[in-house]
Amino acid sequence: MLSSHRGIEVSCLTSRSEAGKKVTSLYPWLPYSADLTFQEHSLDALSSCDLVFYATPNKIAMTEAAVLLERGVRVIDLSADFRFSDVALWEATYGGKHGAPDLLQEAVYGLPEKYRHQIAGARIIGNPGCYPTATALALMPLVEASALMESHIIVDGKSGASGAGRTAREDLIVAETSDNFRAYAADGHRHEPEMAHQISQMGQEVSVTFVPHLLPMIRGIEVTVYVSASLSIDDARRLFEARYDSEPFVSLAGIGRHPETRWVRGSNRCVIGLYQQRAGQLIISSVIDNLVRGAAGQAIQNMNLMLGFNEFDAIPVDALSP
Amino acid sequence: MLSSHRGIEVSCLTSRSEAGKKVTSLYPWLPYSADLTFQEHSLDALSSCDLVFYATPNKIAMTEAAVLLERGVRVIDLSADFRFSDVALWEATYGGKHGAPDLLQEAVYGLPEKYRHQIAGARIIGNPGCYPTATALALMPLVEASALMESHIIVDGKSGASGAGRTAREDLIVAETSDNFRAYAADGHRHEPEMAHQISQMGQEVSVTFVPHLLPMIRGIEVTVYVSASLSIDDARRLFEARYDSEPFVSLAGIGRHPETRWVRGSNRCVIGLYQQRAGQLIISSVIDNLVRGAAGQAIQNMNLMLGFNEFDAIPVDALSP
Amino acid sequence: MLSSHRGIEVSCLTSRSEAGKKVTSLYPWLPYSADLTFQEHSLDALSSCDLVFYATPNKIAMTEAAVLLERGVRVIDLSADFRFSDVALWEATYGGKHGAPDLLQEAVYGLPEKYRHQIAGARIIGNPGCYPTATALALMPLVEASALMESHIIVDGKSGASGAGRTAREDLIVAETSDNFRAYAADGHRHEPEMAHQISQMGQEVSVTFVPHLLPMIRGIEVTVYVSASLSIDDARRLFEARYDSEPFVSLAGIGRHPETRWVRGSNRCVIGLYQQRAGQLIISSVIDNLVRGAAGQAIQNMNLMLGFNEFDAIPVDALSP
Amino acid sequence: MLSSHRGIEVSCLTSRSEAGKKVTSLYPWLPYSADLTFQEHSLDALSSCDLVFYATPNKIAMTEAAVLLERGVRVIDLSADFRFSDVALWEATYGGKHGAPDLLQEAVYGLPEKYRHQIAGARIIGNPGCYPTATALALMPLVEASALMESHIIVDGKSGASGAGRTAREDLIVAETSDNFRAYAADGHRHEPEMAHQISQMGQEVSVTFVPHLLPMIRGIEVTVYVSASLSIDDARRLFEARYDSEPFVSLAGIGRHPETRWVRGSNRCVIGLYQQRAGQLIISSVIDNLVRGAAGQAIQNMNLMLGFNEFDAIPVDALSP
Repeated sequence: MLSSHRGIEVSCLTSRSEAGKKVTSLYPWLPYSADLTFQEHSLDALSSCDLVFYATPNKIAMTEAAVLLERGVRVIDLSADFRFSDVALWEATYGGKHGAPDLLQEAVYGLPEKYRHQIAGARIIGNPGCYPTATALALMPLVEASALMESHIIVDGKSGASGAGRTAREDLIVAETSDNFRAYAADGHRHEPEMAHQISQMGQEVSVTFVPHLLPMIRGIEVTVYVSASLSIDDARRLFEARYDSEPFVSLAGIGRHPETRWVRGSNRCVIGLYQQRAGQLIISSVIDNLVRGAAGQAIQNMNLMLGFNEFDAIPVDALSP
Repeated sequence: MLSSHRGIEVSCLTSRSEAGKKVTSLYPWLPYSADLTFQEHSLDALSSCDLVFYATPNKIAMTEAAVLLERGVRVIDLSADFRFSDVALWEATYGGKHGAPDLLQEAVYGLPEKYRHQIAGARIIGNPGCYPTATALALMPLVEASALMESHIIVDGKSGASGAGRTAREDLIVAETSDNFRAYAADGHRHEPEMAHQISQMGQEVSVTFVPHLLPMIRGIEVTVYVSASLSIDDARRLFEARYDSEPFVSLAGIGRHPETRWVRGSNRCVIGLYQQRAGQLIISSVIDNLVRGAAGQAIQNMNLMLGFNEFDAIPVDALSP
Repeated sequence: MLSSHRGIEVSCLTSRSEAGKKVTSLYPWLPYSADLTFQEHSLDALSSCDLVFYATPNKIAMTEAAVLLERGVRVIDLSADFRFSDVALWEATYGGKHGAPDLLQEAVYGLPEKYRHQIAGARIIGNPGCYPTATALALMPLVEASALMESHIIVDGKSGASGAGRTAREDLIVAETSDNFRAYAADGHRHEPEMAHQISQMGQEVSVTFVPHLLPMIRGIEVTVYVSASLSIDDARRLFEARYDSEPFVSLAGIGRHPETRWVRGSNRCVIGLYQQRAGQLIISSVIDNLVRGAAGQAIQNMNLMLGFNEFDAIPVDALSP
Repeated sequence: MLSSHRGIEVSCLTSRSEAGKKVTSLYPWLPYSADLTFQEHSLDALSSCDLVFYATPNKIAMTEAAVLLERGVRVIDLSADFRFSDVALWEATYGGKHGAPDLLQEAVYGLPEKYRHQIAGARIIGNPGCYPTATALALMPLVEASALMESHIIVDGKSGASGAGRTAREDLIVAETSDNFRAYAADGHRHEPEMAHQISQMGQEVSVTFVPHLLPMIRGIEVTVYVSASLSIDDARRLFEARYDSEPFVSLAGIGRHPETRWVRGSNRCVIGLYQQRAGQLIISSVIDNLVRGAAGQAIQNMNLMLGFNEFDAIPVDALSP
């Protein structure tokens, strides 16, 4: 995506394990990036940039961000280091001491539909997790309108295997995961505190039960959210339509239809469906591409906001389908 | 499965659309069945059998079963015609008048773990639906023990595409369904009344919110069930272990593990996992093969009970994996 | 792709079966196309365009193209009507009389790497078939250099299921095609005469044995081509590198690597690998995206050439991967 | 399969890495094997068996087999150690010195359709590779009849990902291999010498060009074989029918049909299709399940022959489909 951005030059790409290799030797499907080579990771090299993306394991960005900010470099962190404003909650969730508690206060949660103006002025962004993005967009109109009748929410999530990254794990090989389906982390997943924390910030305190599942496919997240709400299904649709009317990346599925992950494959969009089986209840199905809206696409959207570009530059809207 | 049963002879196989064709010309992967040929559907032909399976669309078995029973032929119906003891509920769910309301009272719900003795003596069986089987086994120990604290249950179901049968539907072709995931019938699915009715019969009145989803794979159902229950997770495990200790086709996943649909692919087993994220709550993940335990395998298990064979004759236990 | 082309306006979109429907109601994943609606098919409506694409079944474009050309509209036909310059061969392959034999002589085969200049000046283009595109690019350097020692060529092709279009066919549903692999049309496929004809036009008369296979996936074609050739593997690499050096859409896989269909998923590129197991022989593996380079992408590339745009406008290069 | 064999007791199961673990903790889908535990690998433990299967990496069985044979234990080796009668060819293919060259002479190639009687009397069996099995069965009737006109054969093979075993490899994870297709080892694969050697033993000296490909699925091998042959397609069918008439595990696809890997998923069968596009040529498509006929199933078939059981005991014939 960055390669196709007319206002951006990717000047520095670092990697601990791949330094010295050309991008196209690792990713032969990215010929647009033909001239890029991975360098050794070094703060000095990164300091010449206007903005740095961290796509590192947790607990790396938090040790380096302060130096970059001091040098006038803005930071978008795709790890979990800057997603909570509450230090204690972060430490309870990820363990150990946070390396930059002050920055945790300063960092803005990079969900543009909620924090567009704060993002534009921010020095540092905590880019949302994939499941929390799909879930927050599914609930934001309701909690902003204080429409939840009970604070407890059930989120049944399903993700394609790319959510686990490009790692050699026996349980991810085709012979184990293809034509297979299972829950994981049903006792508690690290995205649950992020969901509960960020949704609660939007207007109504919530607690969340979250069970993720592994889909036998590559890309795509769907969350089915079960809430108690006082609205009729028609009122709910009107509420969502009004809230997302001017948002180009969030839309509602037609009445009687169910959002499909392929509708957003390769796209930065989120599509939401609303359903009701009994009064007082609302069921919300929300789909995103975990690698685009759930990671890189949203990060670039945040970058566009921070650097004053058109928010939608270089961000895919149409999906690749079939 | 029937072909490998030593006590059974498949003497008559009828089909409206395939009469005259050999089984192996339609299903070249079933050479054991080499000599079978589909005949025209006729009650007289079926009357010479000891037992007839109906694997027909809804509303066919209900018009023919009485004749067969009169002639001394026992019936296992894999459609939905005989799954409810409540005529009004059936008519509200499937529409129109039921064709054999008296038989609806007599028919036994073919879930062996619950109704083994009734099945053995029954003339007619309503073979359970796939989602209701996975869900009923996930809840039976709890409702028998009256352990639910609230009557409302959330069932988030996921099924492989074979659940839709072997039909030419545009939305089921590989280019549409592969690498894709979506909910369906989120406004209400016909298996919801069956679940609520049958689970309520087991001990505690429940209401059910059920949202099924279509998995980009062939076989397998997983349901994730969210309930309010007063047990600790350890007590819940003990309860389930005690209930299913002597049941060869139901087992618990090891602690910390999650049941996978591949553990039961081609098998008649159900594997159940228990989880808890907060006090007062229980999460149950239950997997079956929708074509075996959710249909043919359970039907043959019922047949074995009815005809006095060993309950496990010709029924696959080991799964095909990978 | 057209929606993102800055120099193009899609002014008219016709459909026999979908007239009156909005594009986004049929294809919810294409919000860029939000305002387009299918119209009734009518030559008058099409006559106001500068250029018309036919993505119709065979034998439709051939009955309409003459009228459009007369009215000054240029035509790119994605069906097989204009892929042969030899009327007799076309009639032997597709049956019946050709509806526009004169245009068959005039039409240019839309393979830009071979016919770039002719395409730019053409009124009508026969857009190549998917398998013939992958195969022609795999052989062009060899036949141009007269490097084949024997005229007979073996092409073992494999295609994702999207090659069959979006049609409700029982043999294409997930439960039949997923986790499955088979040959088809092994007695002879209509793309074989196109391959033999078009490759022969490039320099050396060839005959082709072609066996296609159906892959349990959505997009992508791979052909493995077996030829007798007098070159060493190093000379072969040099020949291909020289031929495709200035072609942005064709490249060679690195030494020791094998082209993967995911390297070109969603892209207009073709990637080629060269191998040798014994002297006098060459094995060529060539991959394209059947829907992009094998259909729409190549058609738009041809349009760019015909209308004087940059050849690469609106054409995807980077692939969507994973 | 062994668990369901009435004449066999699995008394000893060794593993270097999994000693001490129960089979069902590693393979929860195999409850029939509930009481088995992996032991440390030890020749003494194995010596109490009547027959030992080696499912080890290459070059292990060759160092241990002699000891077992001396102690009266028969051996079936599923690795490549005993598949060649020619020591020099083995050493050229696998590198290093062979550890038991005398046994290499004695060992019988475990292809029952060819060597049934020798297998019955053998002390040690080299169980065929998966690709060579599919290919040998595709060619056996032709080479036995000396019907090949040219000695060179092209074998285009495709295998599901389970052929690579249960190993954590980055290139095998779902996000890399699913919805993807590629050749591998196109410069030369170790199964090529096995094919050429074993087919040549059957009647006509052949050389083989073999290119394998990786399918985005779990189980199944298809090979498409291109040969020069003097027979008409009808004569070819008659030849194959006569040769395999009494073979329960090999059959021909119906005229106009193409063998599908799902026809043999989980089965020990091989299904073969014959095609002709021009005189003098024959195309053969052959499918097996790489894990059953290409490995464990054929090994147990050999065991049945060696131990005097019915050849078909405990061997699956019907496939799991869909």
